[in-house]
Amino acid sequence: MASPGSGFWSFGSEDGSGDPENPGTARAWCQVAQKFTGGIGNKLCALLYGDAEKPAESGGSEPPRATSRKAACACNQKPCSCPKADINYAFLHATDLLPACDGERPTLAFLQDVMDILLQYVVKSFDRSTKVIDFHYPNELLQEYNWELADQPQNLEEILMHCQTTLKYAIKTGHPRYFNQLSTGLDMVGLAADWLTSTANTNMFTYEIAPVFVLLEYVTLKKMREIIGWPGGSGDGIFSPGGAISNMYAMLIARFKMFPEVKEKGMAAVPRLIAFTSEHSHFSLKKGAAALGIGTDSVILIKCDERGKMIPSDLERRILEAKQKGFVPFLVSATAGTTVYGAFDPLLAVADICKKYKIWMHVDAAWGGGLLMSRKHKWKLSGVERANSVTWNPHKMMGVPLQCSALLVREEGLMQSCNQMHASYLFQQDKHYDLSYDTGDKALQCGRHVDVFKLWLMWRAKGTTGFEAHIDKCLELAEYLYNTIKNREGYEMVFDGKPQHTNVCFWYVPPSLRVLEDNEERMSRLSKVAPVIKARMMEYGTTMVSYQPLGDKVNFFRMVISNPAATHQDIDFLIEEIERLGQDL
Amino acid sequence: MASPGSGFWSFGSEDGSGDPENPGTARAWCQVAQKFTGGIGNKLCALLYGDAEKPAESGGSEPPRATSRKAACACNQKPCSCPKADINYAFLHATDLLPACDGERPTLAFLQDVMDILLQYVVKSFDRSTKVIDFHYPNELLQEYNWELADQPQNLEEILMHCQTTLKYAIKTGHPRYFNQLSTGLDMVGLAADWLTSTANTNMFTYEIAPVFVLLEYVTLKKMREIIGWPGGSGDGIFSPGGAISNMYAMLIARFKMFPEVKEKGMAAVPRLIAFTSEHSHFSLKKGAAALGIGTDSVILIKCDERGKMIPSDLERRILEAKQKGFVPFLVSATAGTTVYGAFDPLLAVADICKKYKIWMHVDAAWGGGLLMSRKHKWKLSGVERANSVTWNPHKMMGVPLQCSALLVREEGLMQSCNQMHASYLFQQDKHYDLSYDTGDKALQCGRHVDVFKLWLMWRAKGTTGFEAHIDKCLELAEYLYNTIKNREGYEMVFDGKPQHTNVCFWYVPPSLRVLEDNEERMSRLSKVAPVIKARMMEYGTTMVSYQPLGDKVNFFRMVISNPAATHQDIDFLIEEIERLGQDL
Repeated sequence: MASPGSGFWSFGSEDGSGDPENPGTARAWCQVAQKFTGGIGNKLCALLYGDAEKPAESGGSEPPRATSRKAACACNQKPCSCPKADINYAFLHATDLLPACDGERPTLAFLQDVMDILLQYVVKSFDRSTKVIDFHYPNELLQEYNWELADQPQNLEEILMHCQTTLKYAIKTGHPRYFNQLSTGLDMVGLAADWLTSTANTNMFTYEIAPVFVLLEYVTLKKMREIIGWPGGSGDGIFSPGGAISNMYAMLIARFKMFPEVKEKGMAAVPRLIAFTSEHSHFSLKKGAAALGIGTDSVILIKCDERGKMIPSDLERRILEAKQKGFVPFLVSATAGTTVYGAFDPLLAVADICKKYKIWMHVDAAWGGGLLMSRKHKWKLSGVERANSVTWNPHKMMGVPLQCSALLVREEGLMQSCNQMHASYLFQQDKHYDLSYDTGDKALQCGRHVDVFKLWLMWRAKGTTGFEAHIDKCLELAEYLYNTIKNREGYEMVFDGKPQHTNVCFWYVPPSLRVLEDNEERMSRLSKVAPVIKARMMEYGTTMVSYQPLGDKVNFFRMVISNPAATHQDIDFLIEEIERLGQDL
Repeated sequence: MASPGSGFWSFGSEDGSGDPENPGTARAWCQVAQKFTGGIGNKLCALLYGDAEKPAESGGSEPPRATSRKAACACNQKPCSCPKADINYAFLHATDLLPACDGERPTLAFLQDVMDILLQYVVKSFDRSTKVIDFHYPNELLQEYNWELADQPQNLEEILMHCQTTLKYAIKTGHPRYFNQLSTGLDMVGLAADWLTSTANTNMFTYEIAPVFVLLEYVTLKKMREIIGWPGGSGDGIFSPGGAISNMYAMLIARFKMFPEVKEKGMAAVPRLIAFTSEHSHFSLKKGAAALGIGTDSVILIKCDERGKMIPSDLERRILEAKQKGFVPFLVSATAGTTVYGAFDPLLAVADICKKYKIWMHVDAAWGGGLLMSRKHKWKLSGVERANSVTWNPHKMMGVPLQCSALLVREEGLMQSCNQMHASYLFQQDKHYDLSYDTGDKALQCGRHVDVFKLWLMWRAKGTTGFEAHIDKCLELAEYLYNTIKNREGYEMVFDGKPQHTNVCFWYVPPSLRVLEDNEERMSRLSKVAPVIKARMMEYGTTMVSYQPLGDKVNFFRMVISNPAATHQDIDFLIEEIERLGQDL
C-alpha cells in the first residue's frame, strides 16, 4: 500500500544520523521539517543530523537532485535485501520495479521522484522569470546528447536524468507568455486527470474495459450537444484524435448520408461530390478530401470578406455552378473561429443555403466552439444549432490538455452505420450487459485513447461558469491588446475593427520602415520583420507568438490568447518585447 | 519551487502537536518516520504527536484519505492567508490552483494527493488479492452516481473523490490476471513517461514547439526501421493514433504511390483499385477502404489455412482474377500476428507475389511486430524487410502504455507528398532552423499527441534485450498454457499445434457437454459456454479473457499474454477459474 509521500523513502537514513556520505538525505528531510513552526523543525533536523549545528547548512531551496543520491548500502545485489539498504537508482533497473517481487518500495520511490521532477516543472512553468523555451537548434540537441536506443538497459538514475533533460528543453506551454498556438496553458485539474488517464491505461472501444470513461463520454457529448442547441442534447458524437480527424469524420458521414453505397462500392459508384468551405478555413478540409478519395479539386474555396468571413452569396453562386456542371454538392463546412483571423462565418445565412440545396452543414468550431460557454460571446455562433455536425476542440479555447477534440453529429446512429464493421472478436453480441454502450465500432479507429476524462473532470471543477469566466477573460485580454496597439506608433492592423475571437493580427513596423513609401520594397522588408523578431524571441526565450503570411498580406503576427495564466502585464510585456527585438530592423 | 514530497504539506501541522481535529496529519508523518530505525522513528512520532503514547495508534497501513482532512484554520477566506492554515480541499476550488496568485502551495498539495491516489491504484493493480474489475452494469453506474455536468464548480475535495470513484470502477489493466486485450500490463517507466508527456502538454507538428519529442520520434522510428531490416534504417514513418489509422495510412500512401493524381482528382480519376488481405486480417483494412472511397467490396479476402495464415496461391489467383476484370491491384496487406489466432502470414511468399505483380506490400504487424525484438522469434516475420510499409504497435506486445502505434514506410518523402497541404500559418518556410524537422505536414492530423516518449524512455530503461526478455517470457507462458490444456479433460483446441504468438484459442467443454455427440445441439450449447463464464469472471472480478466466434467455429476463448506481470501461477489460476465457473454449464 502506498503511504502518502512515499517518495521520502528515497531520502530515508536508516540510523537517523546524518550520513556523511549522503548529506542530501538528511537535508531533504530537514527542509520538509522546516515547514513546521514552533521549533519542531529545528528539533527534527537536529535529530536527523545528530548535530544541532548542521541544519544551518540546509538553507538552499533546491531539493537534492535525484542523481546526487548515493547508497547507504554497499552491497551490489539487485534487488538489494539488506535491511540498511537505501534506494540507489544507480543500482536499480526497470526490472526491479513492479511487477517485480519486492518491487513496491523502489516503484513508489521512483514514481514519486518522477513526480517531484514534474512538480518542479509545473511550478517553473508559471514563473515569469523562467524562460518559455531554452532553444537549441536540432543539430545542437542531437550532438549534445546521445538519444540513441541500445541493446542494454540503463539504470533508473539515468532514466530520471532523461526526464529532467527532456523537460529542460521542452517548451513551457503553460507559461503565461506562451501565445504560439491555439492550445496554450496548463490546467492543474486537467493535468491531474490526464495522469489518472495514463494510470488507468485503457481503451475506449467497449464498456467492458472502460466502463466509467464510456459513460463519461456519453454524458459529456450529450452536454456539448445541449449547448450547441440540439433538442434534448440528442444526437451522436465521438472524441477523436484532433480537429483534422473530426473534420474528416464529418465529411465521411455527410457522404455516407447522401450515398451510403460508397461504403461498399467506393467513389466510383457515385457522381462527383463537391465540398465548400471558405478560403480562410482550416487545411484539414482539403486533407480530408484527399484522403477520402474525393480529391482536393472538389473542395471549392468560397471568398471571404475583409474580416475573413465566408460570403454567403459567393457560396450560393458556387453551389449553383457545381450543380450546373452536374456535380453534387454534399457538404458545406463553415468555420466558427478561423485559424488566423478568428473569423466566424455567418452560420444562419449558411444554414439557409444548406437547407435550400439540401446539403450537409458542418461547422468547424474547433477553435471557436469554446465561445459557446460564454453568454456574452455565444451569439457569434448563432446558427450552429442548425448544423448537421460540429467539430469542437476543448483542447483549444477551453484549455483542456492535448488531445481533446469532439465531433458532434445531429443524427443518431449515422456514425455507427457509416463505420461499423462488426468485428466479432471485439463487439460480441452475446455479452451480459447493454451493448449500446459498446460504441467503438462507430469510430474509424479500433483502439481509441481516453480523451474525455480530463474535460469531464475540469468541467466538474470549473463548472460551465468557470469556462465562461476563462473565455470572457481571454477575449477581454485580446481586446486590450487591440486597443493598446491600434493607434500605437509602429503598428498596423491586418484587418480593421475589434477582434471577434482572441486573434489579433498585426504588423510591427520598425522605425526604419515607417518612413518608406508603401511600395514593393517596403513590403519585402516588412515580410522579414516578424520572422526575425520571432527567432530572437525564441533565442531569448522570453515569449512566443506566431506569424504567417496570408494571401497578399506579407508575414504578420497572429496573437491568440487561450492561456489562463496570461494577464494584462503579459500583453504589455509582449508589446515591449516586440519593440525591443524589432526596433533595429 | 517544489520540494520533494511536497504532498506532505497537506498533512503539515503548524505547531507540531497532534491536531485533535486532524489525527491523519501526524499519523501520516509518523508512518513515514517509522521507516527510520534505531529509535528515531518513535522519537519523531512523539515529537509530532506531542505525546509518547499516540504513535501506537498509527499502526494502520491505510493512509489518511484525502477527503477526511479538516482545516486547522477556521477562516473562510480563499485563498486563506492565515499562517496556521492547513490545506482544506472543501474550501478550495480549481481557481485557487496555479496560475492563481499564491496558488503554488495548494497546487502542489493537490497534485501530490492525486498522485497518492494513483500510487495506491498502481500498487493495488499488481496485487492478486485485488479484483481485476469491480463490475457494475451501465444503468447501475449511471444511477449510483451523479456524473452530470453543471454550471457551478465543485470543490477540490469533490474532485479528489471523483478520481477515487473513477479508479474504483476502472479495469485494472495492469493486473497479473487481466488477459482480455492485446494491450495489457502497466509498465512503470512507461507510466512515468506518460505522466511527463501530459505535463509537457505539447503537440508534434513542429520542432518549434516539441524539439525533444520530434528528435526522439526521428531516432525511434529509425531504430524500428533498422530492426525491420531496411538498409541503414532509412525510410519514413509516423506515430499515429492506433493500428487502424496506421493501416489506413498504408492504404492511402500505396494508392498515392501508384496514382498520385488521386490527391487532387479523387477516385473518379483512376481505375477500380483492389486491395488484398486475408480473411483473418484485422477489420481496419475494410474500414480504411470504406473511408478512403475505395469501398469494402474492393477488399478481397484471401483464404487462410487451418492455422489462420494467408494461402499465397489463393492470393495470386485473386490478383489475376482482378486484373482480368480490368481492376488494378494496388495493395496486399499481409498480417504478422492475426488478432484471434496470432497467425503469421508467409511474408516471403507474399513478397514474391507483390514483386511479380508490382503491388505495394504492407505488413500489419500491429500485434506481431514485437516479436522482431526477439532473436528467438523474429524468424516468424521473415520477409517483413521486403515490405513497403509496416504497422507496428508498441502498445500491444511491447507493453507500452496506450496509445503507441507506428507506421513505417520504406520510401522516404512519400508520406509528405501524399498528405502535405502547406499551411503557411503552421509550417512557415522562413523560420530560423532546419525545417526538415517540421514533420507535421506528413500527417493526416494537424495537432498530434506525443506518443513517442513512453516508448523511447522504456527502450532506454529496458534496452532491446529487455523487450526481448519480455517477449520470450510471454511466448513461453503461452506455450505453457497450450501444453497444460491440450490434453486436459474438458478442453478442445481451436487449431492444432503450438501457438506461434501468445494466442491460445480453445473451448472449455463443461462435463454435461462432454458426453454429447458432435452435432448441432452440442455446438449450440457450446457457443453459450464462453459468454457465461466470461460474465461470471467479470462479476467475480477474478480474471478477464476474451472470447469470440470465428467463421464456422462457435464462441471460443482467445487467451493472449502480453502482460509482464503474468506468471505460470496466473495461467494455472485462469484454468482453474474457467473450470470453477463453467463446470455446472
